[in-house]
Amino acid sequence: MAIVLTESVADKLLPFATLVSGALALGFRVDVFASYWGRGAGRTSPAPAGATVSPGHGKEGARRESALAAPKAPSWKAMLEMAKSIGELHIYACSQSMELLGLSKDELDPLVNEVTGVATFIDRTRYARVTYFI
Amino acid sequence: MAIVLTESVADKLLPFATLVSGALALGFRVDVFASYWGRGAGRTSPAPAGATVSPGHGKEGARRESALAAPKAPSWKAMLEMAKSIGELHIYACSQSMELLGLSKDELDPLVNEVTGVATFIDRTRYARVTYFI
Amino acid sequence: MAIVLTESVADKLLPFATLVSGALALGFRVDVFASYWGRGAGRTSPAPAGATVSPGHGKEGARRESALAAPKAPSWKAMLEMAKSIGELHIYACSQSMELLGLSKDELDPLVNEVTGVATFIDRTRYARVTYFI
Repeated sequence: MAIVLTESVADKLLPFATLVSGALALGFRVDVFASYWGRGAGRTSPAPAGATVSPGHGKEGARRESALAAPKAPSWKAMLEMAKSIGELHIYACSQSMELLGLSKDELDPLVNEVTGVATFIDRTRYARVTYFI
Repeated sequence: MAIVLTESVADKLLPFATLVSGALALGFRVDVFASYWGRGAGRTSPAPAGATVSPGHGKEGARRESALAAPKAPSWKAMLEMAKSIGELHIYACSQSMELLGLSKDELDPLVNEVTGVATFIDRTRYARVTYFI
Repeated sequence: MAIVLTESVADKLLPFATLVSGALALGFRVDVFASYWGRGAGRTSPAPAGATVSPGHGKEGARRESALAAPKAPSWKAMLEMAKSIGELHIYACSQSMELLGLSKDELDPLVNEVTGVATFIDRTRYARVTYFI
């Protein structure tokens, strides 16, 4: 499974982490190219507090937001860490984005395996069975 | 064709319904995992009135919004219902999301076939030719 | 590689152009179905000035916005034009969307190869190795 990740809001990160966990549990190898936000999400500082739900959902958005803030709500970060411990999860940070945002490797989360260009990612995932852009 | 659906705005639901209709017309089987919003869109209550166009389009957004509100604009819901009557369309509601939002099966639209976990969906669609995350 | 494109903000168009460039450099053929925004982005008038970053990123959004506005920031449009000159890039504008928005063929960017329905696109890309919905 190959995933290009550009989102940084919880209502995208949770489906993302859920997909990754499910795929790893089934024995898939999962490769993630964190293209733009990726570097944001992969940074050691926590995500901005307000950015939990993408706009445009109307009243449904408020319901989501409170559900995601509830104590019983799963943490996408914890799900990813757990998933990485049970299967083959490779996370690449986009080198072009890092340069554009002036980020150094030290600012990346330990979950990130390496920094690569997009061609490397496409080359490594050209035989992926399942591909998603998030 | 396998689709993971997390959006609830008309300018995503219309391309979604268009893709599904086109694929079914070509004889594809289509499996949809309505992960987060899915439960929102799949609920019997209508979608919130204001949530028709995703933000961030600038002036182009207003043009889209009025086009989507025009009487001649196609309805994504009607397109899906029509599509389901002509081909193999399977819609799964994400069990984790339903629990998180406190939704019961009764609140789902009749278009939803069943409630499943993500692993079941990934397992059933691992040989899909085309995969999209919307 | 088959891409369905519905976004019009720079922080989606840049990853889009990056993916396309990388894939063409590796010898992929790339087919793009510009479903909704496509017609917006494919129009000869420039994109609205304010629509550079999708909402919902919190403080991270401001950082992105200034990075994308910096003189050293790559232009997704220039990247696409360059990419098209080196490989097989086919861009289709969605006929249904054009009708809905009242756009004529003259308003499309020269990068657009032809106007088609979604079924034609799905049919032509049914054997694509990699499929993304942006």
